[in-house]
Amino acid sequence: MSRPALEVRPIVAADEPEWRRLWTAYLTFYGTKVPEPVYASTFARLLGDEPFDPGGLLAVLDGRPVGLVHYLFHRHCSRIENVCYLQDLFADQDLRGQGIGRALIEAVYRVAEDAGCPTVYWMTQEFNYAGRMLYDRVGEKTPFIKYQRPAG
Amino acid sequence: MSRPALEVRPIVAADEPEWRRLWTAYLTFYGTKVPEPVYASTFARLLGDEPFDPGGLLAVLDGRPVGLVHYLFHRHCSRIENVCYLQDLFADQDLRGQGIGRALIEAVYRVAEDAGCPTVYWMTQEFNYAGRMLYDRVGEKTPFIKYQRPAG
Amino acid sequence: MSRPALEVRPIVAADEPEWRRLWTAYLTFYGTKVPEPVYASTFARLLGDEPFDPGGLLAVLDGRPVGLVHYLFHRHCSRIENVCYLQDLFADQDLRGQGIGRALIEAVYRVAEDAGCPTVYWMTQEFNYAGRMLYDRVGEKTPFIKYQRPAG
Amino acid sequence: MSRPALEVRPIVAADEPEWRRLWTAYLTFYGTKVPEPVYASTFARLLGDEPFDPGGLLAVLDGRPVGLVHYLFHRHCSRIENVCYLQDLFADQDLRGQGIGRALIEAVYRVAEDAGCPTVYWMTQEFNYAGRMLYDRVGEKTPFIKYQRPAG
Repeated sequence: MSRPALEVRPIVAADEPEWRRLWTAYLTFYGTKVPEPVYASTFARLLGDEPFDPGGLLAVLDGRPVGLVHYLFHRHCSRIENVCYLQDLFADQDLRGQGIGRALIEAVYRVAEDAGCPTVYWMTQEFNYAGRMLYDRVGEKTPFIKYQRPAG
Repeated sequence: MSRPALEVRPIVAADEPEWRRLWTAYLTFYGTKVPEPVYASTFARLLGDEPFDPGGLLAVLDGRPVGLVHYLFHRHCSRIENVCYLQDLFADQDLRGQGIGRALIEAVYRVAEDAGCPTVYWMTQEFNYAGRMLYDRVGEKTPFIKYQRPAG
Repeated sequence: MSRPALEVRPIVAADEPEWRRLWTAYLTFYGTKVPEPVYASTFARLLGDEPFDPGGLLAVLDGRPVGLVHYLFHRHCSRIENVCYLQDLFADQDLRGQGIGRALIEAVYRVAEDAGCPTVYWMTQEFNYAGRMLYDRVGEKTPFIKYQRPAG
Repeated sequence: MSRPALEVRPIVAADEPEWRRLWTAYLTFYGTKVPEPVYASTFARLLGDEPFDPGGLLAVLDGRPVGLVHYLFHRHCSRIENVCYLQDLFADQDLRGQGIGRALIEAVYRVAEDAGCPTVYWMTQEFNYAGRMLYDRVGEKTPFIKYQRPAG
């Protein structure tokens, strides 16, 4: 008996239905939703090759998409090369603890490394305990917290 | 007797010496430094008009540069428009408490608004007490904390 | 088929071996240990009735001790009545998620209520994710953080 | 010209009016108040010698009370000796930055040391920036955060 094969690969056009399912689950988990034009715009950007548009990877377990990650590169004033911002990360909730999240993060590390941008970062809510259990193992907490312009 | 005039305006080529002085003071405050090619690259990007390159503003008090801010726009998977990341903010330390930091942040709010990107955010160290006294008034704390890929 | 009976009751003298086992597991979990005189002193205090000495409760599942909690009362300058500080909380790690921690905390709430001291608080490490998953449900996070005199 | 003499000494009965003024200012700073019986009870406890009742110190500058601290000892299950909980700390707001807070904290360190209880701790709101500027110098932040029983 072998362990089920977990593969991480770039999102392609044919993945749209499964990508939509996984990203909707991600958004629902965070209590948010996006309108249809954002699905269309983001999916097109994920498939394109504009250097500042987001890229995306799917985690596929035994042929079935079970997780996704979105990332993008942006400038950094203290560096010549870009940095990589890992933005959305999701694994099917009934498959947690099987290494899907870790595989996706490590795949982004490799994509960024290959792009000459070794710095990868992400943000998470302080009380995302399940996520942080993983992030403490695969990444490191920084002392930085996020402020934003007030709404309205 | 009138209050000294505080102006915030885009950085121009002739500002290089004062920009260098202020940004070096900023970097020193955070215990870091950057090599000469980063000064050259970042200043060129600040002056150019590539849409994903950083922009910069100077705060000028009675004709003298006393503060700066760098910002950039990047994609966001949940939006069609970009978001604005306010990256570096500095005011001369002997002029703190005179509204320079607030004027710079509010100027970035207007730049982002004019660019059709109302979302502006920044990150700060949890223990940056002096900064947070200002940020709590002009912005709002989010529950997001930053993780990063471990060095090495 | 009935659910196994979970009982919470005060620690008594005959519980010493099981109390020692559970408290040692608690201390080990936090990477610490205490010398033998502390075991003796604390156990004697738990059994006594000095009003400012700690009290202790055991969680017993089908007759077997599976968790413990220590608590104490202390003065508070803004109140006439004491407040209750819930200090040590532990459940056997192979029995997590069965309501033992919650039952122990709620039992301390009742002990404090019966003593006329409705205020109960505790402290936990920011990164005690498993604990905080429970604490967010049975208690509420405050904005207070702990400082201490530096060692040595 | 000599620097004004800052003295820290135990609160005595004749200090009641100034103690009341300073403690009320402290409570007001935190947006709270206490009823008259709490003033009476707490002041009596501060003057008494019950071992688990709070003690208090006044900071006196040129003969004038300008700050106060309350502290108490309580049991700790992992120690035979008590620990010292520094509860209320206040300095007149127009005299901040003159070392009053530091002198009061260090005086509590000495009181605790003399009582054979070297451990001293306190809690502060995460966003008490002015306080934390001092606490980071005279104490050390721990990773502990406070939870409490929900009201009502």
